[in-house]
Amino acid sequence: MGGSLIVISGPSGVGKGTVVKRLLAEMPDLYISVSVTTRKPRPGEIPGKDYIFIDDKQFEEMVVNNQLLEWAYVHGHYYGTPKRQVFDKLAEGKTVILEIDMQGAMQVQRSVDDVVLIFLLPPSIKELANRLDKRGTEDEEIRKLRVLRSLQELDYIVDYDFMVLNEDLDVAVQSIKNIINMSKWVVTRGRARYLINKLKNGGVIDYEDFDFNKFKEGER
Amino acid sequence: MGGSLIVISGPSGVGKGTVVKRLLAEMPDLYISVSVTTRKPRPGEIPGKDYIFIDDKQFEEMVVNNQLLEWAYVHGHYYGTPKRQVFDKLAEGKTVILEIDMQGAMQVQRSVDDVVLIFLLPPSIKELANRLDKRGTEDEEIRKLRVLRSLQELDYIVDYDFMVLNEDLDVAVQSIKNIINMSKWVVTRGRARYLINKLKNGGVIDYEDFDFNKFKEGER
Repeated sequence: MGGSLIVISGPSGVGKGTVVKRLLAEMPDLYISVSVTTRKPRPGEIPGKDYIFIDDKQFEEMVVNNQLLEWAYVHGHYYGTPKRQVFDKLAEGKTVILEIDMQGAMQVQRSVDDVVLIFLLPPSIKELANRLDKRGTEDEEIRKLRVLRSLQELDYIVDYDFMVLNEDLDVAVQSIKNIINMSKWVVTRGRARYLINKLKNGGVIDYEDFDFNKFKEGER
Repeated sequence: MGGSLIVISGPSGVGKGTVVKRLLAEMPDLYISVSVTTRKPRPGEIPGKDYIFIDDKQFEEMVVNNQLLEWAYVHGHYYGTPKRQVFDKLAEGKTVILEIDMQGAMQVQRSVDDVVLIFLLPPSIKELANRLDKRGTEDEEIRKLRVLRSLQELDYIVDYDFMVLNEDLDVAVQSIKNIINMSKWVVTRGRARYLINKLKNGGVIDYEDFDFNKFKEGER
């Protein structure tokens, strides 16, 4: 498959978690980044698998020590992606999935250059509100805020590479699998720069040159 | 499949023509736009199928009457894409392929917004020069110019959505087929604007809303 860095974003309730779980089951070569967060575990969440649960002080230290690829403060809690695990897995040639919000996605795009951004769309805002109601783990006020925030997030779709409709789960999962399988062909700044330079210098490019690990090494 | 507008570019000799012929054979639903040109037919080229061959005066009239989606003057000849056939086929829900150079691709992107741009890469510049030598339909001077121009064109890859390596023809064709099949998920300005507005206005979006014809209509 060849290593790529993939971001999957979308409003709360769109079904990112379900889609990512299915992706991992069907593409065992993927690595799903585990975020750190300061929020409390929800019923059924497994520490170290769903999230790494830490306290505010630990989180602030990670920020100060530049150990996070991106981080955000959402609905009263911190969320972040540890740099180390992401770059280690990419160095092994794995494709790494980050399930992060639009704020985080923009930070990753700015700092890494070579990331493929996928936005998961709901069929309607009403449907989104229904799904949040069913989840029912938060109070009314937070659910309302999440819906308003979703409307705001829609404006950032123009900065994404792909937007996939999550109406039928199977279609959404299959579509994202196809996008992942083709992600090496997406023009990202670092990859394009590396390939262009190699061609201009009389080099021969092959399929491996499109892998994240390979062209990042070639850039150094 | 759903209608999209797709551009395939790449340096002379990279094998665009061969790739496009294979695509058409394997995806009969595609429509390959036929360009008008003022150059003379090469041996084996069929007028009306490979190109519509016209004279300078006819070409200039098409430009003046705004009947071309894009046009360029390359190696002493005019090339252009007639607007009418492209929009007629898109209105039928077909996916339309434009095999045009980078200059034309940028014009289409500016005027149409919703186009998916694919750049076909050679394994090396040397390989490209060899292929041009084998073709041997032009004199030495023009072949040299084509190679220099290829080097220049590489810098425009950053404005493309995808870059596909044409090392193995089967891999290149299969990859482009996959890109075409997923092109409805690519974030293009008009498509994103239409979907965002529909969601914000309380609407329900479905798969058809991603088709070129559908969202262009919705924009009006």
